Amino acid sequence: MPASAYDSLISRAREISLVENSVTLLQWDQETFLPSRGHDFRGQQLACLTGLTHRLFTAYEVSEWLKKAADEIAATDDFEKKANLAHWQRRYERATRVPVAFIEEMELEKSRGHVAWTEARQKNDFALFQPSLSRLLAQSRELADFWGYTDTRYDALLETYEPGITTREITALFQQLRPSLITLLAERRRQGRPVQRLLGHFPSAGQMALNRDIAEALGYDFQAGRIDTSAHPFCNTSGPFDVRITTRYDESDFLSSLTGVLHETGHALYELGLPSEKFGLPSGTAVSNGIHESQSRLWENHIGRSRTFWERWGDDAQKIFPQLASYSVEEMTAAVQVVQASHIRTEADELTYDLHIMLRFEIEIALLEGQLEVAGVPTAWNELFQKSLGLRVPDAARGCLQDIHWSSGSFGYFPTYTLGNLNASQLMATVRKKFPQIDDELTLGNYEPLLLWLRKNVHAHGQTFTPQQLMIQATGEPTNPAHHLAYLRKKYLES
Amino acid sequence: MPASAYDSLISRAREISLVENSVTLLQWDQETFLPSRGHDFRGQQLACLTGLTHRLFTAYEVSEWLKKAADEIAATDDFEKKANLAHWQRRYERATRVPVAFIEEMELEKSRGHVAWTEARQKNDFALFQPSLSRLLAQSRELADFWGYTDTRYDALLETYEPGITTREITALFQQLRPSLITLLAERRRQGRPVQRLLGHFPSAGQMALNRDIAEALGYDFQAGRIDTSAHPFCNTSGPFDVRITTRYDESDFLSSLTGVLHETGHALYELGLPSEKFGLPSGTAVSNGIHESQSRLWENHIGRSRTFWERWGDDAQKIFPQLASYSVEEMTAAVQVVQASHIRTEADELTYDLHIMLRFEIEIALLEGQLEVAGVPTAWNELFQKSLGLRVPDAARGCLQDIHWSSGSFGYFPTYTLGNLNASQLMATVRKKFPQIDDELTLGNYEPLLLWLRKNVHAHGQTFTPQQLMIQATGEPTNPAHHLAYLRKKYLES
Repeated sequence: MPASAYDSLISRAREISLVENSVTLLQWDQETFLPSRGHDFRGQQLACLTGLTHRLFTAYEVSEWLKKAADEIAATDDFEKKANLAHWQRRYERATRVPVAFIEEMELEKSRGHVAWTEARQKNDFALFQPSLSRLLAQSRELADFWGYTDTRYDALLETYEPGITTREITALFQQLRPSLITLLAERRRQGRPVQRLLGHFPSAGQMALNRDIAEALGYDFQAGRIDTSAHPFCNTSGPFDVRITTRYDESDFLSSLTGVLHETGHALYELGLPSEKFGLPSGTAVSNGIHESQSRLWENHIGRSRTFWERWGDDAQKIFPQLASYSVEEMTAAVQVVQASHIRTEADELTYDLHIMLRFEIEIALLEGQLEVAGVPTAWNELFQKSLGLRVPDAARGCLQDIHWSSGSFGYFPTYTLGNLNASQLMATVRKKFPQIDDELTLGNYEPLLLWLRKNVHAHGQTFTPQQLMIQATGEPTNPAHHLAYLRKKYLES
Repeated sequence: MPASAYDSLISRAREISLVENSVTLLQWDQETFLPSRGHDFRGQQLACLTGLTHRLFTAYEVSEWLKKAADEIAATDDFEKKANLAHWQRRYERATRVPVAFIEEMELEKSRGHVAWTEARQKNDFALFQPSLSRLLAQSRELADFWGYTDTRYDALLETYEPGITTREITALFQQLRPSLITLLAERRRQGRPVQRLLGHFPSAGQMALNRDIAEALGYDFQAGRIDTSAHPFCNTSGPFDVRITTRYDESDFLSSLTGVLHETGHALYELGLPSEKFGLPSGTAVSNGIHESQSRLWENHIGRSRTFWERWGDDAQKIFPQLASYSVEEMTAAVQVVQASHIRTEADELTYDLHIMLRFEIEIALLEGQLEVAGVPTAWNELFQKSLGLRVPDAARGCLQDIHWSSGSFGYFPTYTLGNLNASQLMATVRKKFPQIDDELTLGNYEPLLLWLRKNVHAHGQTFTPQQLMIQATGEPTNPAHHLAYLRKKYLES
């Protein structure tokens, strides 16, 4: 028998995490190896297990434990216990406001949404996804109403991905960021740099070998992870020592799978850097998407899309792909630093990426607020895209259908990508201040000082601080776009 | 709301099946793709989910539904409903006799046992597995005591795998079988046939392609299945349209992976032949191991190890492996019909296979009855093996450590392999009577008439009959070793 109510909560949290991490394994399998006719049953499984975790957490005894545990730890100054309890209380409150039947129905709708979106994207026909999207939007609104909010429904959804930040704050950050990005982009265009490509045929097997070597060098432990193939790269945690990533292969462009792997390795390093003995507890769980994405973007962009990276890996790449022999380190670097507006967010360069996000944010708000009908999404998307990125959208697959998020009802997720970019630059600025010689280490392929700093200052804390508290602790201030803008200027205009 | 208590049971059974089939997916992953450091947490997950299914089935309301449903259907003559209810009653009784804590502890022990067995086998050191085996044996006895039995503990365990049969009946069948097998074996030895081998290097990729073509031709639907690689071939159901198999590759012997695939395809065809709309209900579940194994052995031995098979597939194999060009159909047939006592059960020929099983049966009984200590297993094994198969056992890895079953506490499982052999021969004898021209069809690679007959007479019934009732329905009599002995004589002595 657990000795205290707090211990009972710990043990329930661990039990829930066993089920939740079975769900993530089922999801990983869904995207990698599941036979095509297995999807329907898989959707039912996910709905059932998600419902079970919900029931386990909203059981009557949990409310009793929460009350008693609050008394138990009131007198102590154990910061971690207090943080864990606060998280459980918040989660309990949010969870008990939503009926189990609603959760299960929404899970089923997500599975159906995924199937509909996949088909719609494949056939390039938004109408195939529209009914599903309408239902998921309606459910998301309902969910926001269950959870409650003071200002806007969007706040309630955002809270899922980035606790403690408001729609108003995001809007303010974006208003600060957008004009500067547009200025940077215009300046870069005026420089008229050529578009560097690395041409050749790059067999998948070679890409896999190179990606694996690099991921391992960054610190990804293949005894606690693996790289598989999926339509969309992702990182998935199924246990404290089981964090898997995926990528996809384009044999005419090895950088596509590589940047996918760098990105997902960043996520994996965060997950594997969380204190494993606290797995399943708030203090052993990643704090937010905006912090998670800071880790993936840091490794993908600050490390991968840099000259130091190609100084270290250029030879290795040339050994695996002799067709690269004619390219210099400068050309390889230029190839990962191409700036060119494009239709697909995940392929966007660092100067245009956040414009994709702001567009998505604008449309989500309009949908949630009822200012835009689901049927009007493609037109709205295409108009805003033309205005913001100066490109005509040729079809829905390269337009509003490109991303998976809405198909799983994840409204409020997109802005955290931009938070991730801002946080990554801010963290790297701090690292550079603390280790002025860091580039020498990176050139040698010594990623350990960087990883250790991130583990200590970001990973180790789990959810014991809010994302913004964590940024203040690690960097001295909350998320501030100035660092990202300075980084972009230096990298894309002054070098 | 379900309209009746019976419908409530249906809906609970379906819910449990969603969780159970998540367990099987986690197990499949454990054997195929799980990173090495992930095993410990996976063990906890399996224990937790298994505990959950146990709780879902033993909840108070289930006992109420069982009572009410019995009244509801007493007046009807719906045979299927009655069979389902009888199964649930039996399952409920068995389940409620075992405490949840015990189930979870045993699940954990199985996970640890698996790790210990793997290491012991690798290092060829029984002592590394011995403590685990002792605990699993003790737990299996305790389990038998919880479940109850009239004659011997072994009956209670056997019931898990082969409902309705007793240890006494198995013993009687084996006593009938053994002397005839030994006679057949001696006669065959006197014939002094040469040992035919198919020599060459057979790259795994070619084996995979051939295996896949063959499995598909037999009727295995790759939209509802897949073939992966694992240390030990197995078949695993994770949903009505998600039945996966595995095999292992030896590049000096393509027959090893192929016979593995034929065997597991047999299991998969049974699982995929069950009525999918009844998935999760007794009437949509395989009836027993002895029937399941009849399906795998039928496709592996009666189909695969036959001359007709090589008449159909010899050319295909030679196309993929040109090094086979020098072998005739007769030689290929002889290569899959080699009779030669060997140490490993899964590689045993049809004349010696059941001697391995009888040995295992004898040792299990002795362990369960306390006539043999766990520490004495290797010696007992080696002595019995020498006596029964005339071979000295060189080490534990090729002796008592070769099989996985005990590491997951599966005592009482082995005899069902021999039941499978007997049932397979008996079913095939019936098929030959009904379709005298069946060999012409098989030579052409037309497996459909056979598969359709099996679907109709075996697969379609799920658990609505007991295994022996099913045999009587399909073949006119209960399991009778005479058919198997006749088949072996004809195949191994008279052709």
